[in-house]
Amino acid sequence: MLSLALALAAAPAPAKPPRTPPEIVAAAPASAWRAIPADDLLVIDYEGGGRTIVQLAPGFAPVHVANIRRLANSGYWTGSAIYRVQDNYVAQWGTNDAKKTLPPGIVAKPPAEYVRSPRGLVIRPLGFADAYAARVGFAGGWPVARYKDGSVSLTHCYGMVGVGRDLSPDTGMGGELYAVIGQAPRQLDRNIALVGRVIEGIEQMSALPRGTEALGFYKEGSVAKKIAQVRLASALPGSERPAFEYLTETSPAFAAYLDRRANRDDDFYRVKAGGVDLCNAPIPVRRVPAR
Amino acid sequence: MLSLALALAAAPAPAKPPRTPPEIVAAAPASAWRAIPADDLLVIDYEGGGRTIVQLAPGFAPVHVANIRRLANSGYWTGSAIYRVQDNYVAQWGTNDAKKTLPPGIVAKPPAEYVRSPRGLVIRPLGFADAYAARVGFAGGWPVARYKDGSVSLTHCYGMVGVGRDLSPDTGMGGELYAVIGQAPRQLDRNIALVGRVIEGIEQMSALPRGTEALGFYKEGSVAKKIAQVRLASALPGSERPAFEYLTETSPAFAAYLDRRANRDDDFYRVKAGGVDLCNAPIPVRRVPAR
Repeated sequence: MLSLALALAAAPAPAKPPRTPPEIVAAAPASAWRAIPADDLLVIDYEGGGRTIVQLAPGFAPVHVANIRRLANSGYWTGSAIYRVQDNYVAQWGTNDAKKTLPPGIVAKPPAEYVRSPRGLVIRPLGFADAYAARVGFAGGWPVARYKDGSVSLTHCYGMVGVGRDLSPDTGMGGELYAVIGQAPRQLDRNIALVGRVIEGIEQMSALPRGTEALGFYKEGSVAKKIAQVRLASALPGSERPAFEYLTETSPAFAAYLDRRANRDDDFYRVKAGGVDLCNAPIPVRRVPAR
Repeated sequence: MLSLALALAAAPAPAKPPRTPPEIVAAAPASAWRAIPADDLLVIDYEGGGRTIVQLAPGFAPVHVANIRRLANSGYWTGSAIYRVQDNYVAQWGTNDAKKTLPPGIVAKPPAEYVRSPRGLVIRPLGFADAYAARVGFAGGWPVARYKDGSVSLTHCYGMVGVGRDLSPDTGMGGELYAVIGQAPRQLDRNIALVGRVIEGIEQMSALPRGTEALGFYKEGSVAKKIAQVRLASALPGSERPAFEYLTETSPAFAAYLDRRANRDDDFYRVKAGGVDLCNAPIPVRRVPAR
């Protein structure tokens, strides 16, 4: 009996199956992850330190993204600032100085890349109702909505990045960008060009003092966060190049993650929600060693 | 002809009908507004200045709210702090110091006031789909969800305030509170006691540096925002007493407001959303002169 007891004691404890969304994500196999190209990573460095990294979405707003890459490569944003922070809405940065020389190749008046054709997109449905669109889900690592007319848009979830613009038909050339820092302002979907999302360092924007003027603009001359430089990750030396992967929506791990977001039943929870909002199931992204 | 032209020129310009949600709210008649009782206003003053005001919801969590009023009246939170700020989730404050003497009348283990009976509640439906509940809408000035079993809960929208707790069956006695500062974490609905919402000064919480420890807790000894005192507005001298009103969900002005939130068509917009999420239609609240 004693030997049996010892044998039992020595046996490894049965592995606890992953239960929370972060546990599911941590247990996802390498095959469930896809690398984000270095040309799709916009690295924003602030004066005095701190960094925000934006993943660009060339599949949804190709002309705007091409502009943004050109602006980054030309050093366009050096010395610009975050000049607007509106609580529960957006932080906005960059510049649209008419006197500033634009790098060659910039499309000054891009088309309205607010929606795209569904052609070539496979949408993994969220599976729960949405107040704004006939169907919502995920495609190519992005949250998307599909409308009755068949068009597809990215959606204004927390951290998504769009292009500031004046009144229509202006669509913004990309010099001024904003990130969502509150409840998803989905009324902006199909009305503005979304070009990416913050994947690291959102707190450099979301934790800033709110601007006291209308729409969260800072008072003239008051301190806005200054931007030292904005570069594509592909322009950084290899050893300093940040690298990220996202969990593909076609993987079983993503399905399990989504199910846990909709049906939390770990020890804290008493009642499963039985559903989840598109913007409350952010696509998991992880940092990986430089390649 | 000249005199006609002059007459026309002298006629007042036709009044522009209100078009944006803020314009609708600004034009709402006095009859559409209802006063918030001074006993339902929790006034949080910070060391070094700044104030946050929370409207309490005694109709949804009466035992917890009674506790909170007693704690406020006893000065329980003086010298406490905001000790947790997790990006896109919550800011949490207060204290649960077992050595601290509780004022008389505190219910140490309140019931799970996570849902309530629909009896006596008239829910004005939102009219758009929701990922979490069979029906959502507004009742008594609050965003609510009604579930298949007939129960009703408040919903974790931006700014809503809940009671921190340990694992079930603990429900928290009210000494530790949190406010939502990101995308609505609706999975918490029916799992925690919501007791109110921030109606002024949310930026005192949402713009704080994010805690660097797990779940957004601050590193021990690092600076959390210190709370000087927390009082009910009813405990303040009349001349200093803040006063607020909310737009009643039964008013035509509220219906017009909701319609504009769902169908923005002012000059910036190209496409109407045709819907709005419950948490993207915050109930309008306004400050009024002290009574």
